[in-house]
Amino acid sequence: MAPPFAKAAILGIGLIGSSLARLFRKEGLAGRIVTFDSNPLHRQRALELGIVDDAPGDLAEAVRDADLVVVAVPIGAYAALAEAMGPHLAPGAIVTDVGSVKGTAIRDLAPHIPEGVHLVPGHPIAGTEFSGPEAGFAELFEGRWCILTPPEGTDEAAVAAISALWAKAGSMIEIMDPATHDRVLAITSHLPHLIAYTIVGTATDLEGAMQQNVVKFSASGFRDFTRIAASDPVMWRDIFLNNQEAVLEVIQRFTEDLTALQRAIRWGEGDKLLDLFSRTRAIRRSIIDAKQA
Amino acid sequence: MAPPFAKAAILGIGLIGSSLARLFRKEGLAGRIVTFDSNPLHRQRALELGIVDDAPGDLAEAVRDADLVVVAVPIGAYAALAEAMGPHLAPGAIVTDVGSVKGTAIRDLAPHIPEGVHLVPGHPIAGTEFSGPEAGFAELFEGRWCILTPPEGTDEAAVAAISALWAKAGSMIEIMDPATHDRVLAITSHLPHLIAYTIVGTATDLEGAMQQNVVKFSASGFRDFTRIAASDPVMWRDIFLNNQEAVLEVIQRFTEDLTALQRAIRWGEGDKLLDLFSRTRAIRRSIIDAKQA
Repeated sequence: MAPPFAKAAILGIGLIGSSLARLFRKEGLAGRIVTFDSNPLHRQRALELGIVDDAPGDLAEAVRDADLVVVAVPIGAYAALAEAMGPHLAPGAIVTDVGSVKGTAIRDLAPHIPEGVHLVPGHPIAGTEFSGPEAGFAELFEGRWCILTPPEGTDEAAVAAISALWAKAGSMIEIMDPATHDRVLAITSHLPHLIAYTIVGTATDLEGAMQQNVVKFSASGFRDFTRIAASDPVMWRDIFLNNQEAVLEVIQRFTEDLTALQRAIRWGEGDKLLDLFSRTRAIRRSIIDAKQA
Repeated sequence: MAPPFAKAAILGIGLIGSSLARLFRKEGLAGRIVTFDSNPLHRQRALELGIVDDAPGDLAEAVRDADLVVVAVPIGAYAALAEAMGPHLAPGAIVTDVGSVKGTAIRDLAPHIPEGVHLVPGHPIAGTEFSGPEAGFAELFEGRWCILTPPEGTDEAAVAAISALWAKAGSMIEIMDPATHDRVLAITSHLPHLIAYTIVGTATDLEGAMQQNVVKFSASGFRDFTRIAASDPVMWRDIFLNNQEAVLEVIQRFTEDLTALQRAIRWGEGDKLLDLFSRTRAIRRSIIDAKQA
């Protein structure tokens, strides 16, 4: 059976891009897999790892004749990338992406997608704290959700083809509008990462002896935040700058709630603390029931 | 060889108490293991699980003739427990505890410890999000730190005996003054838990459809916070009320840092975000190097 795509171009061969390359290879999803990455070391490493067939230093060459183009670079690089590749996209090709913010992803990609090429924005809810071409693995997406946010009027066959791809990855697919996606992710992903970065940052500002103690006794809770706060810095900078509005809104809610707890601690209001701490257990149970724990 | 203790009384048979009971049994650290717990269901369950020899409903009976007493109840219950057990403690006995705040632990226990009984306050830096007698396991403390905070003038043999006990548990031992302990734990443990409770609480206040989305897509970061926010509510209420000063100080630092990030996002200052996100990676590496990841 012929693979669903003759040539897949993966733009950006980091954690997600290299996981997809491995998946495409393993599942026979593309006749040829090529990558373009602005970092020549990443291109070279991808070739050495044998996860792509070719890794040209030229973006136009990478996307030429590709019937599938996956944008897997930090969101801040979308606009320039899209402008550069637009004229070289093949008629009928599908362009998808894996970015964590969908509103600006569409804003930055769509204007450069020629008539007859289909844009199906996507976001696999999967990842680790590791980065680069060596960090990927084909099973990264298994049992995880992938959210697709096709703009109104998107070709249904293109949406079906991208859905089929993620189904092969072992993912469950959800179709959502970009604005809802960005608000959901602001609370489930962007705020937790911002908080983790903040708390680990607070600790790095402590004086020497105290900081050593923090590392030594990190198993008491802090450790879990450092894992999250070890995620790719450029990727996360771009997420916060591109989901500004939704992130600022959840920070505001979070700060109000933290201030209320701070006040309860200051005034010794144990009943308020106990009430909240009891309610939060229920959410954990829902997540375990939803098999996302 | 005779066990180091003839009779160990474990007061409170939750996660930590029941883990210690299992450890004492497995390593032959006590001739007899008894527990007292104000919850009769926990006493009964401990007997059924065979992790204790006896579980009297009377505190005085539990501690009578015990040469080791381990206080493993929420910190808010220390003062009343100490007052009730004080007159029944055997001469030469060692009283230790496992509470997460050491300043108030000593304040509440010490006045009720008779002359000739030794108080060696302790805090194993170990735990899970599960509670109760069934949640414990003997290996919980392996490879983890246990902090001891003996007040000045504490009998050295008693400190050595408690140190030996934790060494048998597989723990590394650190001696620290109570105030330092409470400041270190405020940042490594109490703030992370408060933040996790807050963010999960913020999510529980969302309207229905949004909350369902949060559960569904929790794998993107939020999930890790819900695990921490599923910890025992009474235990945590007591920790915040008893480490008020140190916790309020770290909340203040944290809030300042979060406000600075919030401002950087609002004004699109990507360089500030990138700088912080790059610095936090180093702390993660230190923790991995310290084998606490």
